[in-house]
Amino acid sequence: MTRIAIDAMGGDYAPAAIVDGAVWAAHDYNVPIELVGKEDEIKAELDRIAKKGINSNRGGYYVHKIKVDLSKLDIKITHAEEVIEMGEAVGQAIRKKKKSSIVLAVDAVAKGSSDAVVAAGSTGAAMASSLFGLGRLSGIERPAIALTLPTVKKPFMLLDAGANSTCTPNMLYQFALMGSTFVKSVYGYQDPRVGVLNIGEEAGKGNELVQTTYKMLEENKDGMNFIGNIEGKEIFKGMCDVIVCDGFVGNVALKTVEGSSSMLFEMIKQEFGCNIVSKIIGLIAKPFMKKIYRRINYEEFGGALLLGVKGITIIAHGRSTSYAIKNAVRVAKEAVESGVNKKITEFFK
Amino acid sequence: MTRIAIDAMGGDYAPAAIVDGAVWAAHDYNVPIELVGKEDEIKAELDRIAKKGINSNRGGYYVHKIKVDLSKLDIKITHAEEVIEMGEAVGQAIRKKKKSSIVLAVDAVAKGSSDAVVAAGSTGAAMASSLFGLGRLSGIERPAIALTLPTVKKPFMLLDAGANSTCTPNMLYQFALMGSTFVKSVYGYQDPRVGVLNIGEEAGKGNELVQTTYKMLEENKDGMNFIGNIEGKEIFKGMCDVIVCDGFVGNVALKTVEGSSSMLFEMIKQEFGCNIVSKIIGLIAKPFMKKIYRRINYEEFGGALLLGVKGITIIAHGRSTSYAIKNAVRVAKEAVESGVNKKITEFFK
Repeated sequence: MTRIAIDAMGGDYAPAAIVDGAVWAAHDYNVPIELVGKEDEIKAELDRIAKKGINSNRGGYYVHKIKVDLSKLDIKITHAEEVIEMGEAVGQAIRKKKKSSIVLAVDAVAKGSSDAVVAAGSTGAAMASSLFGLGRLSGIERPAIALTLPTVKKPFMLLDAGANSTCTPNMLYQFALMGSTFVKSVYGYQDPRVGVLNIGEEAGKGNELVQTTYKMLEENKDGMNFIGNIEGKEIFKGMCDVIVCDGFVGNVALKTVEGSSSMLFEMIKQEFGCNIVSKIIGLIAKPFMKKIYRRINYEEFGGALLLGVKGITIIAHGRSTSYAIKNAVRVAKEAVESGVNKKITEFFK
Repeated sequence: MTRIAIDAMGGDYAPAAIVDGAVWAAHDYNVPIELVGKEDEIKAELDRIAKKGINSNRGGYYVHKIKVDLSKLDIKITHAEEVIEMGEAVGQAIRKKKKSSIVLAVDAVAKGSSDAVVAAGSTGAAMASSLFGLGRLSGIERPAIALTLPTVKKPFMLLDAGANSTCTPNMLYQFALMGSTFVKSVYGYQDPRVGVLNIGEEAGKGNELVQTTYKMLEENKDGMNFIGNIEGKEIFKGMCDVIVCDGFVGNVALKTVEGSSSMLFEMIKQEFGCNIVSKIIGLIAKPFMKKIYRRINYEEFGGALLLGVKGITIIAHGRSTSYAIKNAVRVAKEAVESGVNKKITEFFK
């Protein structure tokens, strides 16, 4: 049965929210868990949960307790005495802290005691330890960070969201193939539509990278459903299932969206908070704003995937709540069971 | 006195909204106008305004009539028998349609009958005809599209927003210099803070382009107030006054923000429209949402600037209302009167 290793020490609310999310997932999805981190701290969290129940925290909006019988769940602890902190120089940290929770969580997959990793700590550390500890899938030039994003219709996958600042057309082509295979086998999308993120729809648009990628995808040698270039303003309309770009562009675009959305919510707060009448109206409108917030919330998708390594690595958001971790475990389980990596490597035989 | 040439035929609501905006600007700012386009159509719009007043349309939210005495305004018409349509191949169109409204509007500046151009039609056509008709400022490698964007504090300028898909570090350096000079002399910013759009704050982050640009700006030879790299999620917090990036990244990021904001407003509509109670709450909350919409609306800034050509070219949004055109004329007038181009070229003597 698929076991998921979780870096219990990574993330802004670790270890509490991570352990809550892990137990919640074990309970809801009947999935075995391997918690990797400081044993005493993890045990303290499990004790709390045994007594008081899981803190099911979603978007900071509501918390309620879920009673569980831990003796019925398959939860294993692997002690790790070190933690790689946010902002540490990644390359150095990976080499020096061989007993860190992220390195040992990846190790669990490499050794076969678990089948996938979920990590909410430093993205760079999760990426580097996965690349180093698991290695690339056969035939894959570089792994990519793949992010599932909402649209007004069904979600799509964007890759690369930041693993590679500089890309070749062949890398983007492989990202398209990996993303396409993933949404087909894990999300069950039929004949997923693949697009290249560009500054215009016409074939000749953009820089050399996207122009050459366009030509490679147009040849259609691996049977992908390539639908052409797609502009940033169109990506949330649900016209495309997989969108490729280099990691610099993807990362900047996503973080800019994050920044502008925060500004918008900040302005909403300011406008509704400016006098007593607007405050009351704001209170009445709040449940609707919450529903919207939930629709666009990253928590539903659990986290980003590192696609292209031998194993499944889910990079959860630093601000992951227990709900986000629970979803990340679900996605990890589904990814392992779909056999997506085997399907990807078949293209390169 | 500064005269502004306006392509009366460009934009989704041309010529009506363009002529309304032009007359409104002439009336409010006492600025002479040169309307370039089909004479009979422009005259018909002016007749309508003489009888019924200006349609002052702002964000589609309210329209009211403003009575004006056209005989007291300095409005000149220059006939142009052709129009470059959206989606026409730009290079070809500029060469073939020498009597088109955009080419003749730029010509008016080149010949000196006007001092700046405002154009809401094809961005490519406005850019190409300006570059071809006015030429580059002495010492400038490539012009950039500069866009003023809102933050929770004061607005900042982002460039390049799409003129150059591929850039060199020297180009980005020059964009920083142009943007910095602009916000200083036109917006009156003191010692504007300059940042490089990147995927992390540390000096070594990102691709070769931004790494080299960082080093050039760090040398500080032109006395710019360089504050380092800035991430997409930070740009709307008001920590930076000028942000540089290549035109591919800038264009994708801005359009992605546009797309995600539209999705958000669409979801708000959906949530508030789902039943009678939510509809009533939505109606009560509407004025507040309008206020927010207005704060982030492009109309307030009139349009993007093409910085680096011998003259001032303002590229207004395709969906420009009369209010957006009025503001574009104001910005054009302020830019001319500030002598910003002279200040820019002084750096390259």
